[in-house]
Amino acid sequence: MTAGKRAAEVSLESMHRIFTIPEAPDSTLGRIEKEISENLAGFLGNHIVATEQALTEIEKDFAGASIPEQPAFVSDHTHHLLDKLVSRSVHTSSPSFIGHMTSALPHFLLPLSKLMVGLNQNLVKIETSKAFTPLERQVLGMMHRLVYRDSDDFYQSWMHSANHSLGAFCSGGTVANLTALWVARNNMLKADGDFKGVAREGLFNALKHYGYDGLAILVSDRGHYSLKKSADVLGLGQDSVIAIPTDEYNRIDCMQLAAKCQELTDNNIRVLSIVGVAGTTETGNIDPLADMAAIAQQFKCHFHVDAAWGGATLLSNKYRDLLAGIEQADSVTIDAHKQMYVPMGAGLVVFKNPSSVAAIEHHAEYILRKGSKDLGSHTLEGSRPGMAMLVYASLHIISRPGYELLINQAIEKAKYFAKIIREHSEFELVTEPELCLLTYRYVPSQVQAFMAGADVETNQALNKVIDKLTKHIQKTQREAGKSFVSRTRIEVQKYGGEKVLVFRVVLANPLTTEEILHDVLTEQVEVAQSSIKFLPELLAKIGNSN
Amino acid sequence: MTAGKRAAEVSLESMHRIFTIPEAPDSTLGRIEKEISENLAGFLGNHIVATEQALTEIEKDFAGASIPEQPAFVSDHTHHLLDKLVSRSVHTSSPSFIGHMTSALPHFLLPLSKLMVGLNQNLVKIETSKAFTPLERQVLGMMHRLVYRDSDDFYQSWMHSANHSLGAFCSGGTVANLTALWVARNNMLKADGDFKGVAREGLFNALKHYGYDGLAILVSDRGHYSLKKSADVLGLGQDSVIAIPTDEYNRIDCMQLAAKCQELTDNNIRVLSIVGVAGTTETGNIDPLADMAAIAQQFKCHFHVDAAWGGATLLSNKYRDLLAGIEQADSVTIDAHKQMYVPMGAGLVVFKNPSSVAAIEHHAEYILRKGSKDLGSHTLEGSRPGMAMLVYASLHIISRPGYELLINQAIEKAKYFAKIIREHSEFELVTEPELCLLTYRYVPSQVQAFMAGADVETNQALNKVIDKLTKHIQKTQREAGKSFVSRTRIEVQKYGGEKVLVFRVVLANPLTTEEILHDVLTEQVEVAQSSIKFLPELLAKIGNSN
Repeated sequence: MTAGKRAAEVSLESMHRIFTIPEAPDSTLGRIEKEISENLAGFLGNHIVATEQALTEIEKDFAGASIPEQPAFVSDHTHHLLDKLVSRSVHTSSPSFIGHMTSALPHFLLPLSKLMVGLNQNLVKIETSKAFTPLERQVLGMMHRLVYRDSDDFYQSWMHSANHSLGAFCSGGTVANLTALWVARNNMLKADGDFKGVAREGLFNALKHYGYDGLAILVSDRGHYSLKKSADVLGLGQDSVIAIPTDEYNRIDCMQLAAKCQELTDNNIRVLSIVGVAGTTETGNIDPLADMAAIAQQFKCHFHVDAAWGGATLLSNKYRDLLAGIEQADSVTIDAHKQMYVPMGAGLVVFKNPSSVAAIEHHAEYILRKGSKDLGSHTLEGSRPGMAMLVYASLHIISRPGYELLINQAIEKAKYFAKIIREHSEFELVTEPELCLLTYRYVPSQVQAFMAGADVETNQALNKVIDKLTKHIQKTQREAGKSFVSRTRIEVQKYGGEKVLVFRVVLANPLTTEEILHDVLTEQVEVAQSSIKFLPELLAKIGNSN
Repeated sequence: MTAGKRAAEVSLESMHRIFTIPEAPDSTLGRIEKEISENLAGFLGNHIVATEQALTEIEKDFAGASIPEQPAFVSDHTHHLLDKLVSRSVHTSSPSFIGHMTSALPHFLLPLSKLMVGLNQNLVKIETSKAFTPLERQVLGMMHRLVYRDSDDFYQSWMHSANHSLGAFCSGGTVANLTALWVARNNMLKADGDFKGVAREGLFNALKHYGYDGLAILVSDRGHYSLKKSADVLGLGQDSVIAIPTDEYNRIDCMQLAAKCQELTDNNIRVLSIVGVAGTTETGNIDPLADMAAIAQQFKCHFHVDAAWGGATLLSNKYRDLLAGIEQADSVTIDAHKQMYVPMGAGLVVFKNPSSVAAIEHHAEYILRKGSKDLGSHTLEGSRPGMAMLVYASLHIISRPGYELLINQAIEKAKYFAKIIREHSEFELVTEPELCLLTYRYVPSQVQAFMAGADVETNQALNKVIDKLTKHIQKTQREAGKSFVSRTRIEVQKYGGEKVLVFRVVLANPLTTEEILHDVLTEQVEVAQSSIKFLPELLAKIGNSN
């Protein structure tokens, strides 16, 4: 601290002051708030994706593990945060940030978020949330209806019923998927005779009682990693998640799915759940849900749909049929913080049967008493914030037709991007967009021509070099900070199912223009052509082979 | 909609507009923001705890399950929220709301929360969080050091190491406890010879391989309900959580703990973890952690400490010794959204050994690639918001000595409240405060005198009536809305271990005055004495018995 500078001090009075409502807006806090708002507007208005700086450099500013013995003034610390943190965070709201599912937010959510935080409700119980409890139940009802389209009577009967729940709100898709499989496991291995149920006695006794040698969860090889994580957490083991091959459109092969179910059943492995994917994380494709539902019914197992990404598509009358069959699912995961444009931390799962959640019900003496409407008796999490309010506000302010426009334009933008990639001689479109995701890579036209006539082994060798070039382009582009696409590794049928590295694009931001998409390609060509290592190596390889 | 009123409309332009930064502060959104801030300040400054209204009344305003087909103006919807939701939410920040662990927030966190939400970082990976990743790692380092007090070298080596983690940030204490037990389970049942480990093969194979008949988690009968929930989720079963009796100070009886460990071991049940409680939810007491650590070492099991509430006490040099022995725990849960005064949604668990989390490590192709520093490879949740920033800011602005003042005054206020309860002839102090929690009940002096000389059965009958009176007082007081204490049911040694209903008080709000505490008692006496049912019944009972 510089000599002569006034230092912040710790006293009971100063501690009381930070909890006392400041006189707005000319107070110090009012001024700081204005400065934060301006800085935030500047940050959000800056159309770069990141100011590149090596992580190891940034770590130097977050190095000490001691908790400060000296308090900081709010204004000084705010400046510190703006300087060291905000300026070096990622512009997820930039229209040229098209690499991940985290996107821009409608601006009306910012003051509403402040309201939500300021109220500091705890949704675990009515005593700390009051009206937020029926609000959250209504949001779950709306999302349930979006999926299942039950009658008014149905919602009137169950939406606010103490012993039922149409779903569970949670922090995100991983917890939603975990909750769904937890419910599935506990319902399948329920109490029976002397056996008190898996919830009470655990899996070891449950499998012994029911006489199964194991359980299995079947999902396409495009399933999200949270499913393996859930299987691990639930005690089933990651290996119980069985990946079924996909077709050329990244959709599960239902013939193979049914055959595997039969094989497992024959081997005394009980199929716990079939999981359909509605919007694969890497390519945005949707499984044939109706066919999967039929298989689930045949094998009398749970049918879960992971629609963390694609669930929002149900808001589009034009495209909701892409998810046909979802209404037959026993449970569906939807992330409001993805294409419903709600801030991070808003996932949910809905259950077809309002009684399903009884399988995970729990009570305590001081809250969640039997017969109460406390939300916490049917959620994995305990204390939780009132995020449901932001979903509620978005559903009302944007409305279904507004969401439809957002979703339709995103899909159509992806189709446009696919078209210009296909038409560009130096790019190879790897997966066609079904929703607003696609993958592609840079492959010079002469290499493409060469590979079309080459054998599998030659192409494998070439793909190894193209992978290095793809990684180089993606990293260089990210580091330049003008735009961002992500990269992933997926199997490509035309290369014999070999995994190749691709650029991955998610076109959720409504402000992303066609011009930006052209610019992204132009920049990638420039990076590729200035590559002093990988492009020459690649060209040499086809020269050598010629 | 009233005729003639301008209606909000859906168009691509209007949809783009909601994502475009408004010109502050004279824009419509600027005005709405100002109105929200003023309303929030009014709400937070209103020292009632709730405007009572029957939940069934409120539900009528949250009844439909249809997603609106017509968009709402932000201003109209904001008024709707202020009218129907905010005015009927719970004043958790009121100084007379002393019934739960959800309390007031320092006001500087409100603009910072808006900043956090606006940046919409996703902490699952560096590509969507950049500087937030080292910041979160530093916060985990600070909290780790608060517990374990390792050297500078230790933190320099591990805090930012890609393949290590000092802990996991999460939405709350339940996920923190679950994560700790997940790590414990996977480390105990690790790969061994042909067995690929419980994470891969699941519990059924794991128990067969290791030859155990079951696993057990031992915790005092005051343990939080999230432990049973975790045992259920993890496939161990709720019955694997074994409740050990507590002494008159609500602390686990270590003799019985050790004896039970031995008995289980003799019966081929492997003790997975002993869980110490540092701040029981109901009474705020702390287990003898050092003694428990010794028992855990003897039985070679994991030692977890659930310090969701009490962990913040480590910030007080005066009181941190109450948690002596916590530094021997393998893992510790602390909720920053409890007595660290951070908004809802900020829990964490720290691990003594930076390599522990390897047991739950997972990777994917598009993120969390091996060797990356992505936080998501060691967390139960996937996508997560940047809440760590609010903990970071609070640690800097309040500082350790500031927290010490807050914690010390809370404990001392609880001691004061205990004193006036003890001195009041009509109240019975049921549990003494060790931290800032206590429990008590209203029992007229002549009833107290009578019970002192009565036999167990007579007292049991009386306690049944007192329970009804306690419930009546608590509900009436809550409904009146001036102040709020919660109620719970706990075993009381002097009544032969019978469970009785008690008022439960958490004195975390720094603005709660001694006057408020006196008023709470005065109101309770008034409610009791105007009881036309339970008090007369009680007095009649001792009259009859005389």
